[in-house]
Amino acid sequence: MLIVMNHTASEADIDRVLQAVSEMGYTAAPIPGSQRTAIGVLGNKGYVDDTKIRDLPGVQQAIHVSKPYKLVSRDFHPENTIVDVAGVLIGEGCRPVVVAGPCAVENEEQIMKTARFVKQAGADLLRGGAFKPRTGPHTFQGLREEGLKLLAKAKAETGLPVVTEVMSPDNVGLVAEYADLLQVGARNMQNFDLLRELGRIRKPVLLKRGMSATIEEFLAAAEYILAEGNEQVILCERGIRTFETATRNTLDLAMVPLVKEMTHLPVMVDPSHATGKRSLVIPMSKAALVAGAHGVLVEVHPEPEKALSDGPQSLTFAGFELLMADMARLRSYLAG
Amino acid sequence: MLIVMNHTASEADIDRVLQAVSEMGYTAAPIPGSQRTAIGVLGNKGYVDDTKIRDLPGVQQAIHVSKPYKLVSRDFHPENTIVDVAGVLIGEGCRPVVVAGPCAVENEEQIMKTARFVKQAGADLLRGGAFKPRTGPHTFQGLREEGLKLLAKAKAETGLPVVTEVMSPDNVGLVAEYADLLQVGARNMQNFDLLRELGRIRKPVLLKRGMSATIEEFLAAAEYILAEGNEQVILCERGIRTFETATRNTLDLAMVPLVKEMTHLPVMVDPSHATGKRSLVIPMSKAALVAGAHGVLVEVHPEPEKALSDGPQSLTFAGFELLMADMARLRSYLAG
Amino acid sequence: MLIVMNHTASEADIDRVLQAVSEMGYTAAPIPGSQRTAIGVLGNKGYVDDTKIRDLPGVQQAIHVSKPYKLVSRDFHPENTIVDVAGVLIGEGCRPVVVAGPCAVENEEQIMKTARFVKQAGADLLRGGAFKPRTGPHTFQGLREEGLKLLAKAKAETGLPVVTEVMSPDNVGLVAEYADLLQVGARNMQNFDLLRELGRIRKPVLLKRGMSATIEEFLAAAEYILAEGNEQVILCERGIRTFETATRNTLDLAMVPLVKEMTHLPVMVDPSHATGKRSLVIPMSKAALVAGAHGVLVEVHPEPEKALSDGPQSLTFAGFELLMADMARLRSYLAG
Amino acid sequence: MLIVMNHTASEADIDRVLQAVSEMGYTAAPIPGSQRTAIGVLGNKGYVDDTKIRDLPGVQQAIHVSKPYKLVSRDFHPENTIVDVAGVLIGEGCRPVVVAGPCAVENEEQIMKTARFVKQAGADLLRGGAFKPRTGPHTFQGLREEGLKLLAKAKAETGLPVVTEVMSPDNVGLVAEYADLLQVGARNMQNFDLLRELGRIRKPVLLKRGMSATIEEFLAAAEYILAEGNEQVILCERGIRTFETATRNTLDLAMVPLVKEMTHLPVMVDPSHATGKRSLVIPMSKAALVAGAHGVLVEVHPEPEKALSDGPQSLTFAGFELLMADMARLRSYLAG
Repeated sequence: MLIVMNHTASEADIDRVLQAVSEMGYTAAPIPGSQRTAIGVLGNKGYVDDTKIRDLPGVQQAIHVSKPYKLVSRDFHPENTIVDVAGVLIGEGCRPVVVAGPCAVENEEQIMKTARFVKQAGADLLRGGAFKPRTGPHTFQGLREEGLKLLAKAKAETGLPVVTEVMSPDNVGLVAEYADLLQVGARNMQNFDLLRELGRIRKPVLLKRGMSATIEEFLAAAEYILAEGNEQVILCERGIRTFETATRNTLDLAMVPLVKEMTHLPVMVDPSHATGKRSLVIPMSKAALVAGAHGVLVEVHPEPEKALSDGPQSLTFAGFELLMADMARLRSYLAG
Repeated sequence: MLIVMNHTASEADIDRVLQAVSEMGYTAAPIPGSQRTAIGVLGNKGYVDDTKIRDLPGVQQAIHVSKPYKLVSRDFHPENTIVDVAGVLIGEGCRPVVVAGPCAVENEEQIMKTARFVKQAGADLLRGGAFKPRTGPHTFQGLREEGLKLLAKAKAETGLPVVTEVMSPDNVGLVAEYADLLQVGARNMQNFDLLRELGRIRKPVLLKRGMSATIEEFLAAAEYILAEGNEQVILCERGIRTFETATRNTLDLAMVPLVKEMTHLPVMVDPSHATGKRSLVIPMSKAALVAGAHGVLVEVHPEPEKALSDGPQSLTFAGFELLMADMARLRSYLAG
Repeated sequence: MLIVMNHTASEADIDRVLQAVSEMGYTAAPIPGSQRTAIGVLGNKGYVDDTKIRDLPGVQQAIHVSKPYKLVSRDFHPENTIVDVAGVLIGEGCRPVVVAGPCAVENEEQIMKTARFVKQAGADLLRGGAFKPRTGPHTFQGLREEGLKLLAKAKAETGLPVVTEVMSPDNVGLVAEYADLLQVGARNMQNFDLLRELGRIRKPVLLKRGMSATIEEFLAAAEYILAEGNEQVILCERGIRTFETATRNTLDLAMVPLVKEMTHLPVMVDPSHATGKRSLVIPMSKAALVAGAHGVLVEVHPEPEKALSDGPQSLTFAGFELLMADMARLRSYLAG
Repeated sequence: MLIVMNHTASEADIDRVLQAVSEMGYTAAPIPGSQRTAIGVLGNKGYVDDTKIRDLPGVQQAIHVSKPYKLVSRDFHPENTIVDVAGVLIGEGCRPVVVAGPCAVENEEQIMKTARFVKQAGADLLRGGAFKPRTGPHTFQGLREEGLKLLAKAKAETGLPVVTEVMSPDNVGLVAEYADLLQVGARNMQNFDLLRELGRIRKPVLLKRGMSATIEEFLAAAEYILAEGNEQVILCERGIRTFETATRNTLDLAMVPLVKEMTHLPVMVDPSHATGKRSLVIPMSKAALVAGAHGVLVEVHPEPEKALSDGPQSLTFAGFELLMADMARLRSYLAG
């Protein structure tokens, strides 16, 4: 940590900071300048809690050099983590995966039909929401446990491992019985009780980026899961909220290569939620893989115009076939 | 709802939309234009779910005229709601309130000392966090039930009603035993299970705006609580996330008069979290009240430089005294 | 400046940085840590250009302690600047001013009628646009020189000094002939040729914050004007662009007390452009003054429903009278 | 246009709107609903100026169905525009182009060396700034005309057409003498005098998206150029400003396929400015092309660590070679 003093800080102000740093068990290194003094803090092994310092008289700013996460950081864990979802491997060096399925499980026919179709078209995992977070209370909120059972049935027939969202700590046990990969939605990225609970299970977790979360906050949220002992975490970019309203969110694709520098965890991309527009899903899926994503999640629905949620961003069966038809060529390009 | 067709939509496209509207039980009113056709949807009593329409061929856009909330809306409930927090009335026409106390309850001495001080300086309610959401897992997370007991003790001595945060549906019962006003933090604004649970209790709720929530989403979140039967809800602006990093968040003060036009619920402002800087708390507290807020929440700590969280934004006792010293004149100006 | 090295930087990497710092004429102070080395740069008299360093192997980050502006900074110029607009003084300690008038000068009747009205109601300065920047090319672009002449006429009759926008370096001379305070619009905040030209004249400048400008960039833009010799600059907050669309922009009122800590220049607020809604202009004008603004700019139009631009945010004459009726009480509250 | 009335609007309010619409020469179609009345405006041939209506009593909102641009719109000009830059064709169906060169022209050796290198590595156009907009006044502002002459020299030797920025209407003539493609920087996207001037020349223009410009505003800015008669315009995404600070800006890559639906103009992407980090330039260049961009602009510098501006985002010669080495395979993948 570097502590920057005000231009007008007195000797006494500086001494007070030096003493506080020393009381915290660190070494203080004053760096006098022509305009102001700065004070380096040495000897810390991780993130320094600055609450006892940044508030002292004469202090202008405390600049952190260490980060609020460590377990997820590539600095301290240089080898790539490969996540194993019921036999499907996800991460650097693995074949990029395609996760497909409807936004919400609506009924048996819809999910079975979709599962069969995406399986034969080449999907690696099946997605579908049983618990649905919705902005207003007057819309469809999901089939809940009934939906989980339908997903299990689809898995039994097609063999596709299942990805589905868990919304509260209470339901982690229940969802973990049925899901192969438990998804934390963007709205829950900082639901810390939920994250801790997921840290205690032995199933992989797909953590979606909050819609206003910085990359640092995203990694710090993942740290909650790893800190409890579960290292099988996949990060998922799904668009951030910006002033632009022409797309539902702004897909931050540059975060993919950047996050891969910062962490050893795999990174996936969800272009359906990010853009909210069907016609953008195929180009952005391909762009995500070329940017280095380890997989994509795309919404597919047999009749998007009848979908109970997110129809306009779901691919039709024909659309999904189009995407998958190109996947072999794209993977071969990516494999170099 | 207004459905806007593409420039190039065919007659068949238009007919398909007319039929879908009619199947939903509404009346369709086509509005042919020189460039494109639009179709008005009549006869709905509230928000129209557009999922069966916006996706049909030839449809460019579905524009909603009704809103995803109704119970919170002033349109359907013109009289102001006054919230009663253990005898302290909050809302339009009431004397604006000041809620004061530390970010987190840290120990008995800290909370008792603060409670006594803010009471004698004129605070109306005591705030203090027992459950603390924190960005990273390696920092202080609150005293939990122990903290609630200390708040109860402070209330017993000073008579100040207590405001404190509840973070998960499981803890609503527990927190409601101790708190007079249950706070939902910004990160949980769309924790729908929590909101529903709070809708079922008979204690008032302080709902903080999510840091990337639009005003519409904020009102829709409050609708979850009212929909379950609890109308004692206070909205609280606490800053939104923008590109500006000179303050912790950007305090959206113009939302205060705007939200008062849109809803009958009271609105408060938290300038401490919004700005993250002690020196801005006093001017922004006053500005909030002049903009029409029904109260402010300010963080006060006996020794901010030793606070376990949010020290730099907490007022010292001297600072709080300065704010309160001016409060009588400000209230008299506001009273006209 | 502090240079933070990677966890894995070699001795050679560190030596290379030490040498580069020394070649730039500064002193390098290495701060070894348990995780990584940081290097303090000492002896600089202002902002350090980091281009020769941040790119060397092993460098993670260069953290600036000095700022990209100096003349506008309170650090180096502690006394408040008072700007004199044809005899009206604006700044700390002066009576807060009200600038009023239409968005655009439309015709003689409109501007004369408005000028007379705002004068008798107590306005201090008259505003009105002769050159208008508009998003699309197919709308009214202003009366240009004809508009300037009408403003001069209104000034001659009412005695109100005139504020009007200048959009390009070419027109600075022309506008300066007629205006007492030359306004730079938000879209031109970083039109550096224009700023430099305004730095060379001897008339005061009202610089509006760009809609996506950070406070640092705003101050750096003002620095362009001061660097050419013109110190009579007033900063003006007019809302920033965020994800919230319920108001035209998000009025960042907390910037007022913050900017007053950072600079000696006066700060004003334009609640009309910031909110885009008439009903919010009065509460936000008052809130701005209570937050410490040295004045407000409000749009007033005799018939807002017929205005050629920005009608919905203009006060009617009755609305302006309401605002001014309260101004004496507000000023007396503010005066303490 | 659809005019939405308040829930409480009276018959008289509605009549007043009907009359205003009719005075504007359009036909009004009232759509009564159970909650409120809406009024369709028919018969307009383009964007309707709503200033005379949105402000009438009882009006809640005016919703535009037509857009503030027409010439750039694919609706009215379905065929793709191909831009010819001194013989290099850019647009749909053409081979995607690579524009390379330093951020700023610094001296003869630097630009000649770079031009020769990027030419032999396969670049299609040479970029380099002679006029540089910089945040603060105390940094390098470009070689101006001297820089243009050096670019001309580089073109003479290598045959690469030249792209360079023009910052003010005065300089359009001068820059057009030397440049084959005139660039408008992000800060000037709404410098309307500059856009109009560029509309009057017969050379192609590269218009960069403003850092807080919506796609609609971006297209409306291009409309200024087309409205004056110059249809040779290329749009360029270069990142938008969001809350995320880990990258310089947030590259909005989903805008590429979206803008291609909305307009007939070519779209390019500048990953260097968007990300501000060298290591992200190669993956984001490829992702941009896969998303459908008609070309990319990348910064290349012989010694990025000595660059006078934007060194950290410039590719080294080795980095550029790496990108180009893959370009043949990528183009062959893209060609299908």
